[in-house]
Amino acid sequence: MGTTQLETVPEPKYWHLKNVLTEALDSEFSVGEILPNERDLAARYGVARATLRQALEQLELEGRLQRRRGVGTTVAPPRMGVAVGSEEQTWPGEGDDAWQAADCQAAPAPPAVTELLETGREEDVHTVRRTRVSHGQPVAAELLYVPDASVPDLSGIDAPSGAARARAVLRELHRLELEGEYRAVELGSASAEDAKELDRLPGSPVLVVTTRFYAGGRTAAVSVATYRADTCRLTFGDAGGVEIDPTPERRAS
Amino acid sequence: MGTTQLETVPEPKYWHLKNVLTEALDSEFSVGEILPNERDLAARYGVARATLRQALEQLELEGRLQRRRGVGTTVAPPRMGVAVGSEEQTWPGEGDDAWQAADCQAAPAPPAVTELLETGREEDVHTVRRTRVSHGQPVAAELLYVPDASVPDLSGIDAPSGAARARAVLRELHRLELEGEYRAVELGSASAEDAKELDRLPGSPVLVVTTRFYAGGRTAAVSVATYRADTCRLTFGDAGGVEIDPTPERRAS
Repeated sequence: MGTTQLETVPEPKYWHLKNVLTEALDSEFSVGEILPNERDLAARYGVARATLRQALEQLELEGRLQRRRGVGTTVAPPRMGVAVGSEEQTWPGEGDDAWQAADCQAAPAPPAVTELLETGREEDVHTVRRTRVSHGQPVAAELLYVPDASVPDLSGIDAPSGAARARAVLRELHRLELEGEYRAVELGSASAEDAKELDRLPGSPVLVVTTRFYAGGRTAAVSVATYRADTCRLTFGDAGGVEIDPTPERRAS
Repeated sequence: MGTTQLETVPEPKYWHLKNVLTEALDSEFSVGEILPNERDLAARYGVARATLRQALEQLELEGRLQRRRGVGTTVAPPRMGVAVGSEEQTWPGEGDDAWQAADCQAAPAPPAVTELLETGREEDVHTVRRTRVSHGQPVAAELLYVPDASVPDLSGIDAPSGAARARAVLRELHRLELEGEYRAVELGSASAEDAKELDRLPGSPVLVVTTRFYAGGRTAAVSVATYRADTCRLTFGDAGGVEIDPTPERRAS
């Protein structure tokens, strides 16, 4: 990495520094490489530590750097494309989906989910916890809320909780004819529980995908899935196996 | 807002504080209200300023608070749902879409876009800049890259740049039969130019939506759109006029 002093520029200093660092990452560093420490970096670029930190935060937000306790700052690999919506509508757990059912509890749903499901505020719904692993890394944690009305034949003989129960709920859900699914994506911060599953600190930026599944003219299930924003790029539609790189500006080569 | 001192808890202090503040926002504050200053808040909750700031940053990330220079920290309104993908595939600018064409320049595309379009590295493509306003607020800025091959009959008589040129490019593009569109969503940070259009500071978190439009068996156009992450919730599919609230945990009522 060079020793260029930053000249006075009209744009914010950290922003200019970020662009300089981006070029350095593209040309001089390889994935997984550990960056020099903050003091050395600040000195090399002739900026204050605070400016450097702001630039590093930006690069982390853009998925270019990973900062981990005890390891330091490393150059991040390109984000993984994880398929969220396909052309075809399918129930969660149907076919060969990428999720592992981990657990199932009966509990009241959060108020907004209750509203979508039109269940009573205190009514228990089946809450299926699932996790998604891609390329050996945890990429998402999901809570799927299924009211009793959607799985009327769920036998009392099935396991009362755990993965077996989760699979039983999904199996019953698949008996309904899926009429539509609608999604919303927004920025969130990882809850303590999600953070643990995703191997991140609580509060890390996540992409929250809420899916509403329609069957029988009503919302039959609601899923709230939390994707790591640092390593994931959510893809919609079937790109026919062609990789989409949605951050064109990041690639200088 | 109460004066509860935070007890020692196993979870990070700022995280616990964030949850306490979330409840206070739900129960004691109304949208647009200005929060007490940091010193007062830190004293009330018996936490260090650094802890308070971390909690406030979380709440900003979750879209609960807005921090603006000269105004202070205010309680944010719920995020707007902005439709990104519908069941039906349409070209940008077709029908009654929410975008305003602002400008059009001929310039080389960024390398990754060039790759998708399979155009030459130095080849000029039509670059249409569009903006999207919702409920009176700028919500997104877009760059749409259209190679010459996709608009072969673009007449030399049309305006050489500006909004009229942009509309002419879109009009010509619509002559092609759209065969598919594929999207990717990821977290990014606003460029200086986007930030200006979106009325945010450079580096603010944005949701970057890259869309690849297929026609004639190849990528006919690529759009890179930048949505404000603080005010927007991206919706996919047609929810039939029913509002999806994807952050169930945020609503305590």
